[in-house]
Amino acid sequence: MANVQIEELRKKLDEINDNLLDLINERAEIVQQIGRVKKTQGMNRFDPVRERKMLDMISEKNEGPFETSTLQHIFKEIFKASLELQEDDHRKALLVSRKRQPENTVFDINGETIGRSGTQTFIAGPCAVESYEQVAEVAKAVKKQGLKLLRGGAFKPRTSPYDFQGLGEEGLKILKKVADEYDLAVISEIVNPADIEKAVDYIDVIQIGARNMQNFELLKAAGSVDKPVLLKRGLSATIQEFINAAEYIVSRGNNRVILCERGIRTYEKATRNTLDITSVPILKQETHLPVFVDVTHSTGRRDLLLPAAKAGLAIGADGIMVEVHPDPAVALSDSAQQLDINQFNKFMDEIKNSGLYNKTDKTSPSTI
Amino acid sequence: MANVQIEELRKKLDEINDNLLDLINERAEIVQQIGRVKKTQGMNRFDPVRERKMLDMISEKNEGPFETSTLQHIFKEIFKASLELQEDDHRKALLVSRKRQPENTVFDINGETIGRSGTQTFIAGPCAVESYEQVAEVAKAVKKQGLKLLRGGAFKPRTSPYDFQGLGEEGLKILKKVADEYDLAVISEIVNPADIEKAVDYIDVIQIGARNMQNFELLKAAGSVDKPVLLKRGLSATIQEFINAAEYIVSRGNNRVILCERGIRTYEKATRNTLDITSVPILKQETHLPVFVDVTHSTGRRDLLLPAAKAGLAIGADGIMVEVHPDPAVALSDSAQQLDINQFNKFMDEIKNSGLYNKTDKTSPSTI
Amino acid sequence: MANVQIEELRKKLDEINDNLLDLINERAEIVQQIGRVKKTQGMNRFDPVRERKMLDMISEKNEGPFETSTLQHIFKEIFKASLELQEDDHRKALLVSRKRQPENTVFDINGETIGRSGTQTFIAGPCAVESYEQVAEVAKAVKKQGLKLLRGGAFKPRTSPYDFQGLGEEGLKILKKVADEYDLAVISEIVNPADIEKAVDYIDVIQIGARNMQNFELLKAAGSVDKPVLLKRGLSATIQEFINAAEYIVSRGNNRVILCERGIRTYEKATRNTLDITSVPILKQETHLPVFVDVTHSTGRRDLLLPAAKAGLAIGADGIMVEVHPDPAVALSDSAQQLDINQFNKFMDEIKNSGLYNKTDKTSPSTI
Amino acid sequence: MANVQIEELRKKLDEINDNLLDLINERAEIVQQIGRVKKTQGMNRFDPVRERKMLDMISEKNEGPFETSTLQHIFKEIFKASLELQEDDHRKALLVSRKRQPENTVFDINGETIGRSGTQTFIAGPCAVESYEQVAEVAKAVKKQGLKLLRGGAFKPRTSPYDFQGLGEEGLKILKKVADEYDLAVISEIVNPADIEKAVDYIDVIQIGARNMQNFELLKAAGSVDKPVLLKRGLSATIQEFINAAEYIVSRGNNRVILCERGIRTYEKATRNTLDITSVPILKQETHLPVFVDVTHSTGRRDLLLPAAKAGLAIGADGIMVEVHPDPAVALSDSAQQLDINQFNKFMDEIKNSGLYNKTDKTSPSTI
Repeated sequence: MANVQIEELRKKLDEINDNLLDLINERAEIVQQIGRVKKTQGMNRFDPVRERKMLDMISEKNEGPFETSTLQHIFKEIFKASLELQEDDHRKALLVSRKRQPENTVFDINGETIGRSGTQTFIAGPCAVESYEQVAEVAKAVKKQGLKLLRGGAFKPRTSPYDFQGLGEEGLKILKKVADEYDLAVISEIVNPADIEKAVDYIDVIQIGARNMQNFELLKAAGSVDKPVLLKRGLSATIQEFINAAEYIVSRGNNRVILCERGIRTYEKATRNTLDITSVPILKQETHLPVFVDVTHSTGRRDLLLPAAKAGLAIGADGIMVEVHPDPAVALSDSAQQLDINQFNKFMDEIKNSGLYNKTDKTSPSTI
Repeated sequence: MANVQIEELRKKLDEINDNLLDLINERAEIVQQIGRVKKTQGMNRFDPVRERKMLDMISEKNEGPFETSTLQHIFKEIFKASLELQEDDHRKALLVSRKRQPENTVFDINGETIGRSGTQTFIAGPCAVESYEQVAEVAKAVKKQGLKLLRGGAFKPRTSPYDFQGLGEEGLKILKKVADEYDLAVISEIVNPADIEKAVDYIDVIQIGARNMQNFELLKAAGSVDKPVLLKRGLSATIQEFINAAEYIVSRGNNRVILCERGIRTYEKATRNTLDITSVPILKQETHLPVFVDVTHSTGRRDLLLPAAKAGLAIGADGIMVEVHPDPAVALSDSAQQLDINQFNKFMDEIKNSGLYNKTDKTSPSTI
Repeated sequence: MANVQIEELRKKLDEINDNLLDLINERAEIVQQIGRVKKTQGMNRFDPVRERKMLDMISEKNEGPFETSTLQHIFKEIFKASLELQEDDHRKALLVSRKRQPENTVFDINGETIGRSGTQTFIAGPCAVESYEQVAEVAKAVKKQGLKLLRGGAFKPRTSPYDFQGLGEEGLKILKKVADEYDLAVISEIVNPADIEKAVDYIDVIQIGARNMQNFELLKAAGSVDKPVLLKRGLSATIQEFINAAEYIVSRGNNRVILCERGIRTYEKATRNTLDITSVPILKQETHLPVFVDVTHSTGRRDLLLPAAKAGLAIGADGIMVEVHPDPAVALSDSAQQLDINQFNKFMDEIKNSGLYNKTDKTSPSTI
Repeated sequence: MANVQIEELRKKLDEINDNLLDLINERAEIVQQIGRVKKTQGMNRFDPVRERKMLDMISEKNEGPFETSTLQHIFKEIFKASLELQEDDHRKALLVSRKRQPENTVFDINGETIGRSGTQTFIAGPCAVESYEQVAEVAKAVKKQGLKLLRGGAFKPRTSPYDFQGLGEEGLKILKKVADEYDLAVISEIVNPADIEKAVDYIDVIQIGARNMQNFELLKAAGSVDKPVLLKRGLSATIQEFINAAEYIVSRGNNRVILCERGIRTYEKATRNTLDITSVPILKQETHLPVFVDVTHSTGRRDLLLPAAKAGLAIGADGIMVEVHPDPAVALSDSAQQLDINQFNKFMDEIKNSGLYNKTDKTSPSTI
């Protein structure tokens, strides 16, 4: 009985929706015409006085049940949309969205294919570049494990101005030297828009760190060069904010962007951050970009790196990033959470034996 | 010429606006009808599947000039507004809602008027009842400051089963004895629905603690007796959940409920919890119940009790709860955040001198 | 050079630690002697006046670098420990801790072994019991998939007092009937301590829900009966609070407790809660209890159930709980996140094909 | 007899207490020395591996009567206190810390004294600069209310690259023109380190926004010019991170920094952010910098601006920032939370009548 009632009411609703749809589009056409006339007269499209007047008329004529403020909010959305329509309607569909591009973005870095369903990439290396020897020792181990991407921080964003800030350009040079010797691609964080141009000479992937996820000037700069970018999720960024940050890069012409989940800030302090594992399938659904998991910063605990990596692979991540240091106990940063070379080898062996890594018959994670 | 054209187009626009206004309100009425049918069936008002379907229909039927994503955004706003309208209906229906009862709920406890605009109440006392002497010493100080409500925990919900769990019924008897001797009303937490009936013989206000804010059986039991209830906000309860918890009590017939903000759990660890100070005016707007601030548990720091109490009074709280112990350093619980008697006297003196407490000319906090 | 300095300073520190250790234990022996003398005299062990005096002496004699308040805090810990020593030192090591019992707690429910390394258990069933037919239809599907545990809510803790509260005892009877017919064990939530005794006649596993994780009276009641308990993590409970809640149950004599991660409350609203996936290996490390993942409530999204289940299995969970309903769109609760029968079959098939479920050669998740 | 025995045992206890006191302080001195060596090496003070080792040694050497877990708990407290002592040393060392400079930092902007106890400053203006007329209209109202600081955004950091990004340098020019005409100082956000130098020609206070609180290159650039800086707390920054961000600026030579609480990101969505009101007294205690409250972004609700401002003043804020727009309904950003001119006048009038603003006899918020 109730269901019958609901069905009837829904039919009425559908009719109203249709009428609304027609009216809103009809309205948009008129606004476009006004815009064209205005353009010929050199008049500004945005006319706040006229807008105010229309909102006042709503106030006068409204008889409910909606409150006037609610209706004004809805009309404001219609006005705004109309204004945007006059500018560039096509930008509305985000370039990074899977609706716009159903197939995965797949690209190649140093012979490693990133983003292809069924293939996963591991990125390993020290938190910070400390010396040539330190980086070379890790590079050797990374190479031996068959990996092709080495990470290392040259510019280190640190909470305190008195903490070790990285070796800067000197660090980039060390990375470049080691990368050439071991035939590895290197990934390193850049923190100043002014450094992006220079950095492309030294590194293969630009990392944008969590603290800079909404440093929009940096995003724009990274979008203007021809290098892949690994973009980390902000400390407490929503998934929508994360996707929009990627859009800043892609909208400038650089579409080789890797999204990297690295844990979010919550009340729970047993881990450094809370690894938001389901962000991986959500990001894979909503965008066509490759999605990685940084197991080091999300957990902040050496004993959780392997379990977190397995979970990441099982849920469909395209890659894992992990920090490795020849002697973590004396590392200049993040000593509690980096693997030493032995631990790294054990880590990779367990990953390879887990059945979760580069399975030939791997099907992409399906959804119901 | 152009102006004539524009004027004509604007007239058309105004007509469309009028039609849109009518249709959107007509639509809202139908949604309200659906909501009412759903309510009788106990169905959830928000139906994402149905919403998806409507959005898909827009996609099918749209012929521009708006992009489908733009239209879907506008319709989402209309859907959201409709949902809020239903929630608004629902909130209007809640017994605790100010839309249902515009005037404040005001009641008397031991000669103290609770909830009257311009009057504030202080509740003070030890975290836990430890002995007759301890409670009596605090009661003496509380009385001397002119206060009329004494708090003290007899049943202590503790994280570990091996921590001091309170003196139980023995503690209630001590409270009753001291209350009688000093002519104070007592407030104490009850944790088991089965104890509510018994407790009313000993205490004047039943406290329901943060951990039990969604212990619905306890709420129902507290709603079935004729005693005021002080309900604390849950550790991470939303304001809506808090209001609904109060509704559980009032819906059973007990309308003397005090809401008590006591801080929420966030990532910030400089304070024990984060005092959500703007919850006070929100709760005052949305309900007609008195709203208190527990400065002890929200901050967990002795040095913040006075500033937090001032902020609470300034923002419109009807009362403040604070913990006092003859010798906090040896207290069996919460030793870091209770005031000793001297500190309590200084605290009350500063409050009385602040111009924020029981001002005769106090106007209720106004909103714009 | 600096490392040499540090090594020397650390040696000194180790010596002081040794001396402190001896002194603190020597002190404890004297306190025990005092306790024995007091006992023969019927004197109260806790003497706040004496304690105050000792704290005052620290204040007088302290010459830094510690502030007096810090030292008093440390001594307070020593005093408290001494007091507890007199009571029952042995309770201090939590019964649930893996340090106390290195091997897994393993037990049997209806022929299903819970908690054995390499074996995983699936629990499926509707959010709420609505009718015999509804439960029976799900039970049939659950049985067909080879599972042995059926879930279903009879007492539903709901935010609003006006939402569907479950069928209560009637619901338990339906569950019992269906369980008998399909030879399944049933798990159902109990919310009132007074109902625990009665419930054991109908159900095989008592569920304690997230909102009741710190309803200590309910935990105590569940600890006093001879039924396995599935304890869900609170909405914003820390892992330590979760472990202590389990200890409440085990300390009363019931050691068949399953811990269930069900997501925590964070700022991110793309999912209903944020699945704290690394809590699984942490709980496995810190306790010997089986750990499950509730994929339904942690994600609140049908499209994430399968990915989340895979991640849970990969990271070492002992079991997965998932909600199934014959027609989710019309379910009285949680309609957006329950699987229908077809989806459930597909879900189980993908799990079985994933290589993550009941692998014969499965080794327990190792840590580095 | 028993009393004699007890007295003797207590004497022994007192001696042990004395020895413990000495040892614990001696230990603290060594830890401080280690801390100083580590600092010169840029090593992290907290070393969990070393801590584990010390705890293990206790386990090996303990012969009772305390359980090892109890002793480990006591030692953990000693470790923690030692770490805090080092942090305390560190905090003392920060240039912004009140331990280093006990008196308030007080400076003058356009005749307005910022940071003096008993004086509060209001900053008002539109979210974004849209046109000369819009800014001038607000400036006129701001001037009429006797205020001296005008805010307005020229560079707008927006979540989406397609949202209105501000008028840029054109906006700064409008601000400068209006400021000159109305004799107001202007405050505006700068987002690119490269723009800082240029900006000082147009504006009087550089704002660094919440999203850029840890954009360390921007902080360094702002620290290198001779202009006051208003630094907003990050979306989910801890108070310690906030203080360290300010230290970045001050350490470069610019000590005119205003800290601005603007709400933190939590699970609660009734407000745009959660105003962390007790951060104000904490920041006042820990630093000597002026502390403001941005009531617009912390609440995101027009109806909460006045209550939040009152709470801010009552708890000791040195100033309040609020957004004002001639016609919020047509604003290009933040339309739901800006005041119109009438509302702004009413807001200021209520503030002036509240007794909380620029009281001549105002004493600084005291702590107990």
